[in-house]
Amino acid sequence: MELSRSKLAVELDRLAELGLVEAGGLAASSGGRRSAIARLASGLRFAAVDIGATSIDVAVTDGELRVLGQLSEPCDIRQGPAAVLERVLDLLGKLRDEHVGGARLHGAGVGVPGPVSFREGMSVTPPIMPGWHRFPVREALAQELGCPVLVDNDVNILALGEMHSGSAPSVEDFLLVKIGTGVGCGIVVGGEIYRGVSGSAGDIGHIRITDDGPVCACGNTGCLEAYAGGAALAREALVHARSGRSAFLAERLAASGTLTAVDVAEAAAAGDPVAVGMIRDAGAHLGTVLAGLVSFFNPGLVVIAGGVTGFGHPLLAEIRSVVYRRSLPLATGNLPIVLSELAGVGGLIGAARLISDHVFSVA
Amino acid sequence: MELSRSKLAVELDRLAELGLVEAGGLAASSGGRRSAIARLASGLRFAAVDIGATSIDVAVTDGELRVLGQLSEPCDIRQGPAAVLERVLDLLGKLRDEHVGGARLHGAGVGVPGPVSFREGMSVTPPIMPGWHRFPVREALAQELGCPVLVDNDVNILALGEMHSGSAPSVEDFLLVKIGTGVGCGIVVGGEIYRGVSGSAGDIGHIRITDDGPVCACGNTGCLEAYAGGAALAREALVHARSGRSAFLAERLAASGTLTAVDVAEAAAAGDPVAVGMIRDAGAHLGTVLAGLVSFFNPGLVVIAGGVTGFGHPLLAEIRSVVYRRSLPLATGNLPIVLSELAGVGGLIGAARLISDHVFSVA
Repeated sequence: MELSRSKLAVELDRLAELGLVEAGGLAASSGGRRSAIARLASGLRFAAVDIGATSIDVAVTDGELRVLGQLSEPCDIRQGPAAVLERVLDLLGKLRDEHVGGARLHGAGVGVPGPVSFREGMSVTPPIMPGWHRFPVREALAQELGCPVLVDNDVNILALGEMHSGSAPSVEDFLLVKIGTGVGCGIVVGGEIYRGVSGSAGDIGHIRITDDGPVCACGNTGCLEAYAGGAALAREALVHARSGRSAFLAERLAASGTLTAVDVAEAAAAGDPVAVGMIRDAGAHLGTVLAGLVSFFNPGLVVIAGGVTGFGHPLLAEIRSVVYRRSLPLATGNLPIVLSELAGVGGLIGAARLISDHVFSVA
Repeated sequence: MELSRSKLAVELDRLAELGLVEAGGLAASSGGRRSAIARLASGLRFAAVDIGATSIDVAVTDGELRVLGQLSEPCDIRQGPAAVLERVLDLLGKLRDEHVGGARLHGAGVGVPGPVSFREGMSVTPPIMPGWHRFPVREALAQELGCPVLVDNDVNILALGEMHSGSAPSVEDFLLVKIGTGVGCGIVVGGEIYRGVSGSAGDIGHIRITDDGPVCACGNTGCLEAYAGGAALAREALVHARSGRSAFLAERLAASGTLTAVDVAEAAAAGDPVAVGMIRDAGAHLGTVLAGLVSFFNPGLVVIAGGVTGFGHPLLAEIRSVVYRRSLPLATGNLPIVLSELAGVGGLIGAARLISDHVFSVA
């Protein structure tokens, strides 16, 4: 955005009146007229909420989206919105006492693990969130917190997190692929989240790989998620444990009574050949779908995120191998494919970015 | 774009000085102050050039992109840029005498059948255009015509044509799929062509359908184009003609010595079951790839265009069937999939739109 000097002054005055920026004195002279410094108000506070299928993470940030305090706890999304949002408010209350004090929150950004009507601020037909369909998350939280609230899906806030402080701050068009229980994709076009006409853009978990593959929870066969999602890998791990093909997984199953994708990652790290093969296969299937999306979208970067990134470089190597072989040379000539380096905080930073962009743009 | 009354007046004055708009007197009063009418200058003239693999179409339009005159002739793109552009200039010269007279052209938009570096105005590594790689099409034509020129690929200008006067004037996010010798896709985001970071976005002809399908010209196996492009259908038609499976195609082959996708369309229209089956299979393969792209991109509309639309409703029915079955319900809930109604002029209207948008935005 280019602004003339006079328009900039008007804009800064406006933001200062709203308490969003404050004067910082005069800059050291570089020869000409000394410039006035404006900086983000030191009292700016945003709340960030990242609701997952089995956990809640909340944080309070300052105006530059630095995390001042963070709390996490296990939480089953299937308890429904009343119980889950009560926990969110309780955790935020604790952070607020310490990091906001008597001052007010300037806004809260919220991510949820399923499709969201961004305009309405609520989940719509979320497959793993019983009771959340059309529950007014944004309005309920805005009323309790007394500040503007925006709600988006977990994948879009991860993409915003990458844009703010991850691998993608200077890339205008990129894809963020989250591999968790399911598989989803955040799409950034021209530095902004692209949501599609009904808000479901990036829902790539049910793109077909074969006609005769495993049956997916959606009712079709051969979907990406049925091959490469965390839930599919856990199911497959059970089969290999019970058949005795993998001694490592069999021991784990005997010890804990169940298996998750994390067990597969640990088995692979310990050199279990069955687990290594599972990760390679998952990577090949992800790569097959991504190769098509890269040809179609021609992004400047692909970031892989989510729990399954615990699989690390074997997964990444397989994805890269397939994409670089199957996508068009023009589209891959200068295309980095990387693992997210934001570990657990990408969603929180993205949620804070979501609401801070909003607060400054409508202020 | 919202403009205040005073800003609008300044903008109109500026465009009038450049000869792009002219005053049209005062509007009838609706009670308050009478409004001044501004209209596009009646002398505005744009050239539109649509270069195909085997033909050239050129037109001159007025400021509202109405075609004032149009000329077409067969032309083999493989003759190289010098010979082809000479023909373009010759045809444009004839139209110019009649429709521009002594006045000047205000700009020219050009479509070419292959990948384009839009920023540089030239083809890059175009597979079916020997001699065109990095030939400065934009600069060569701008020098000859004495006006601004923009060059884009054939699929993007078709998408612009749909945006201007086809099925998509009010849809902000849509896909235009062109099925010609190959298969390509124009992507419109927020009312503008999305080209990707290296200009290859929408190149969907080599998205994988299976690992063990037919070998494609690109060297991979099982690409969409190897199943559903016009060249693939012509090859398959030859097989069915020679084996005698299709009496219709065998007769055609005997009569003309070769077969094209047009013969397949005519065979199907005449009730030849082999040809009908070929079109259904092509539609199913197109639908499979489109289903994934619809889940990913969540467009408000999909338009099917190009020579193979001579296959008409059997092709469309099969595409629809697969997309509505395989894409996510959220993405298809309100998604029309239609055949283009612009027949031969979509590319010309799009080429004119390309340059007129440019002329007005930088004026």
